Amino acid sequence: MAVELIGLDADDTLWHSEGHYEMTQERYSELLAPWVDKDEISAALLETERRNLKIFGYGAKGFTLSMIETAIGLTGGEVDGRRIEQIVSFGKELLDHPVELLDGVAKALEDLSTGHRLALITKGDLFHQESKIAASGLAEIFERVEIVTEKDADTYGRVLNAAGVEPTGFCMIGNSLRSDISPVLELGGAGVHVPYHVTWVMEHAEVDDAHPRLRRVESITDAPEAVRRLGAQGVNGA
Amino acid sequence: MAVELIGLDADDTLWHSEGHYEMTQERYSELLAPWVDKDEISAALLETERRNLKIFGYGAKGFTLSMIETAIGLTGGEVDGRRIEQIVSFGKELLDHPVELLDGVAKALEDLSTGHRLALITKGDLFHQESKIAASGLAEIFERVEIVTEKDADTYGRVLNAAGVEPTGFCMIGNSLRSDISPVLELGGAGVHVPYHVTWVMEHAEVDDAHPRLRRVESITDAPEAVRRLGAQGVNGA
Repeated sequence: MAVELIGLDADDTLWHSEGHYEMTQERYSELLAPWVDKDEISAALLETERRNLKIFGYGAKGFTLSMIETAIGLTGGEVDGRRIEQIVSFGKELLDHPVELLDGVAKALEDLSTGHRLALITKGDLFHQESKIAASGLAEIFERVEIVTEKDADTYGRVLNAAGVEPTGFCMIGNSLRSDISPVLELGGAGVHVPYHVTWVMEHAEVDDAHPRLRRVESITDAPEAVRRLGAQGVNGA
Repeated sequence: MAVELIGLDADDTLWHSEGHYEMTQERYSELLAPWVDKDEISAALLETERRNLKIFGYGAKGFTLSMIETAIGLTGGEVDGRRIEQIVSFGKELLDHPVELLDGVAKALEDLSTGHRLALITKGDLFHQESKIAASGLAEIFERVEIVTEKDADTYGRVLNAAGVEPTGFCMIGNSLRSDISPVLELGGAGVHVPYHVTWVMEHAEVDDAHPRLRRVESITDAPEAVRRLGAQGVNGA
């Protein structure tokens, strides 16, 4: 397949994100320790997030509101104003933390941009994602920046249509099998999976490791070589 | 000027929005009545919103977090978990309320689409705006839907560039002088101002009523005629 357009995920592919959420959840658990233990808090928070997803969508503001709702529920309304205020601060810190690029990102993007068009495709909060893209200093290398509410086959279809590229000319690089890889393989495109050291449970998915249009690499540094190999093979992996 | 592309704002131009925020703020004031009076609450909430705008951006989730933060501040931390829970519910209702089109919108859009390309240009929360656009049943009539974080001259410049239209071929219809009219006039485009019965104080702006490329109409029903008149005059209003 001739890879014309390369899509790149942002959070946990270009810069750190989930690590900040995990740290926030640690501090949140400490705050609620007088009432409930950590495992119970994690399970309850995830349940609230799932329930709220269709109203809040993805992102740190919805996550913060879900933390507040869960804290009130788990403490039977006993959690005090000062603790809630701290939860709001946790949310602000998540939204405001500096963007830290993963190792090797700038060089890898430079390599990938040689002979390919690049698109940044990320989901979540529009304002927060735009802020991070601006702060990353990477915006210029992308032909398109697409901030979307869900990364499914429909969304990728729309993005490819707008870019004038067939799925067989598209390769997506990202850390989430569910959001970055699975829908793209489904459409007929290729994927390079770069796992991050932690994955949000809602991003888990089962994908056949032996799929002919899927490569898995340890670090984004190895992504350009993986794309070259995908480009050197037939559309069906032959 | 020959109007090629017509931009339409969404909240309070195509469907009701600010009215829901005002009603929410009424209920919020009642909740805090044991501690503070209504005027003080309004002033403090606006102050919190202004301060948080650069972290939260626009939209109902940031507004809800600002309501929570303000409630804790105004009550010296005394506000209880059950009241905070109600504030979270207010936010969810804002995000989840049915889309109610303003009178005459469907007919006006049909008229406007004759001989013009239409773009929906709205700011705020990506997930919420997409949900409302889907629920409105109006998406099909728009060639482009642009959900942006701020409606300034730069943003309009980018949208026009992507659409391949010169500012002199663009007319924006909306209820906010600050977001819909002023930056478009500044670029050299035209504006049709359709005031909504309430305006969020942060959308206030001074615009010269006598500007040659500005029309003000009472209702969106009168917008197609206003666009026709703008189209019949020279670029500089002669």
